[in-house]
Amino acid sequence: MKLTDLETPALILDRSRLERNIVRMRDHLSRLGVVLRPHVKTAKAIDVLRLALAAQPGGITVSTLKEAEYFFTHGVRDMLYAVGIAPNKIAHVAALRGRGADVTIILDNVVSAQMVAEQGGAMGVEFPVLIEIDCDGHRSGIKPGDAMLIDIGRILYGGRGTRLRGVMTHAGDSYNCKSVDEIRAMAERERAAVVRCALDLKRAGLPCSVVSVGSTPTATYAENLDGVTEVRAGVYMFFDLVMAGLEVCTIDDIALSVLATVIGHQQEKNWIITDAGWMALSRDRGTAKQKVDQGYGVVCDIDGWPLTDLIVAEANQEHGIIADRNGGALDLKRFPVGSQLRILPNHACATAAAHAAYHVVDGGAEITAVWPRFSGW
Amino acid sequence: MKLTDLETPALILDRSRLERNIVRMRDHLSRLGVVLRPHVKTAKAIDVLRLALAAQPGGITVSTLKEAEYFFTHGVRDMLYAVGIAPNKIAHVAALRGRGADVTIILDNVVSAQMVAEQGGAMGVEFPVLIEIDCDGHRSGIKPGDAMLIDIGRILYGGRGTRLRGVMTHAGDSYNCKSVDEIRAMAERERAAVVRCALDLKRAGLPCSVVSVGSTPTATYAENLDGVTEVRAGVYMFFDLVMAGLEVCTIDDIALSVLATVIGHQQEKNWIITDAGWMALSRDRGTAKQKVDQGYGVVCDIDGWPLTDLIVAEANQEHGIIADRNGGALDLKRFPVGSQLRILPNHACATAAAHAAYHVVDGGAEITAVWPRFSGW
Repeated sequence: MKLTDLETPALILDRSRLERNIVRMRDHLSRLGVVLRPHVKTAKAIDVLRLALAAQPGGITVSTLKEAEYFFTHGVRDMLYAVGIAPNKIAHVAALRGRGADVTIILDNVVSAQMVAEQGGAMGVEFPVLIEIDCDGHRSGIKPGDAMLIDIGRILYGGRGTRLRGVMTHAGDSYNCKSVDEIRAMAERERAAVVRCALDLKRAGLPCSVVSVGSTPTATYAENLDGVTEVRAGVYMFFDLVMAGLEVCTIDDIALSVLATVIGHQQEKNWIITDAGWMALSRDRGTAKQKVDQGYGVVCDIDGWPLTDLIVAEANQEHGIIADRNGGALDLKRFPVGSQLRILPNHACATAAAHAAYHVVDGGAEITAVWPRFSGW
Repeated sequence: MKLTDLETPALILDRSRLERNIVRMRDHLSRLGVVLRPHVKTAKAIDVLRLALAAQPGGITVSTLKEAEYFFTHGVRDMLYAVGIAPNKIAHVAALRGRGADVTIILDNVVSAQMVAEQGGAMGVEFPVLIEIDCDGHRSGIKPGDAMLIDIGRILYGGRGTRLRGVMTHAGDSYNCKSVDEIRAMAERERAAVVRCALDLKRAGLPCSVVSVGSTPTATYAENLDGVTEVRAGVYMFFDLVMAGLEVCTIDDIALSVLATVIGHQQEKNWIITDAGWMALSRDRGTAKQKVDQGYGVVCDIDGWPLTDLIVAEANQEHGIIADRNGGALDLKRFPVGSQLRILPNHACATAAAHAAYHVVDGGAEITAVWPRFSGW
């Protein structure tokens, strides 16, 4: 089967780029002496994870308990659920642990620590816990130096229902960096924040065997990870236009695209209309605040070669409007009704989430595999 | 089962609001003497459609062939596939027709008309076709007065593989109106455009039994639909913040919300952190260009009552950051870890698409039904 045989829109994954991206991150972190705990929130597919886990210890990061269920079913045991635990999810985590999944949870406040310790004690379950650290003011976590760290550490260490395993942080603000130098500095800030908290715990006589950091930008540009035991990253497998805008990858590294078919034109406006709208591309406009605004995505020919200055300028639910990024004239005859194009996404996590499968190609137009994926909770 | 028993995030549908919205639109269009062909692209669920089809002839509008397949399986026969047909979908439409689904397609150019006529002729299938009209410069369609209308009409009328049924348009630009008066004017412009094209076809000796318009804003504020045979609309069933911002509904009409759980706080920043991020709410920021920017959604208590000035100010994949819309101080003790909130969405179509089911309530906190829904192609 070839790309031209697919009903569109359809999600395309270039395996050679995927493998190259995975090897590059693995080699980089290996040089820095840390292991990778791949984040599965981007790919949500066992076939992708198998490639990402090659030559790694086998632990993964999940963003939902549905991911934990799915990957446990596919043989993964060691999982970090990297969203602050909510009371209504404790029973589910306990059930997973009861079936043999080694799920570690995270939290960043005394109330959650007490709740987990109490529920774990009552259920006879010992939940491994990392304390979440805020290294950049981006969202959750305890600031380095906040005495609450030790309070939480003592609750988790003393509780019958909890086992304190360490600390973790996520430099989400790295997505807003303006230069590679800023990302490098952010990587060091991420490392320093969590290593300092690990030291604070140890000085208070508390255990801290796990020191976990992660974001694709900081993982890519980290130069020193002393004191860190593992790195979490997910989007590095596919990359996307936001990552290219950050200089974390090049456009040629982006392994994910959406196949679209031309369904019409608006001659006067120099518009090409396709059947890939925001439902297929996602509403993510992450490049809007970057140096180059890529609209709803960069347009490539069916072989994946970018077409200079063509972007998806607007999107409706099932319609994409392709135009020159500067509003210039287009030779619409080059894009007749029925011709196919591939759109590189702003944000791989959001775009992939709309689709039920990856159509895998290996540079060419032949579909070599179809890899199922899932979404939701 | 109660809302508090759900693992979050979860999609909640208020049945009493849904029914009220459906009845209001039905009565309004009935007064104007036209039938409703509900657009299923928002709900994508047979349980919702059954309510929407009460006292209607039974025809629906679909935005994907997956919707056509699903609703045909559930007994719907009369379907308008309202996205310009692509060559790679013709065989699928033919297969649906072969199984008894009366699928009508649309197109807006000579190449597509010839292609459908030829393929239909070769397959021995007669495809019913509407010609798409551009009433507002929003995306696809032929401008009223363009001679191409008659060229296409003749191809469809003369082709063995096609049956010219009429014209259709969608006033998508109504989403950008700045006042109710503008929406009223847009509704008249939508009507006039398509009625004029119907007349042009008839004057040229071509048939035009269907004259179809549709968008929730114009359907809501249309005062005269003379010459129109049917109205298409979808989001009116649920409504959302974009529609409220357009004064097409009130906040109290919004039937859809996302249940979220508080997982932490950032005291200094007056942030409440929840487990409903953009994956659950969607990346849609449709209110950003309206008079009131609602962030990623308006926050309500678990009973659905809006909490003054609380919005989802930022969203990560599985984290929502709730803050006062003006950056004011919050009494975070009112929202302890584990407490639950409901978020009204910017755009119902995008938010619903992330979820596999509606948890139906009837004003209260009791879940009276779980209605499955689908996404994708």
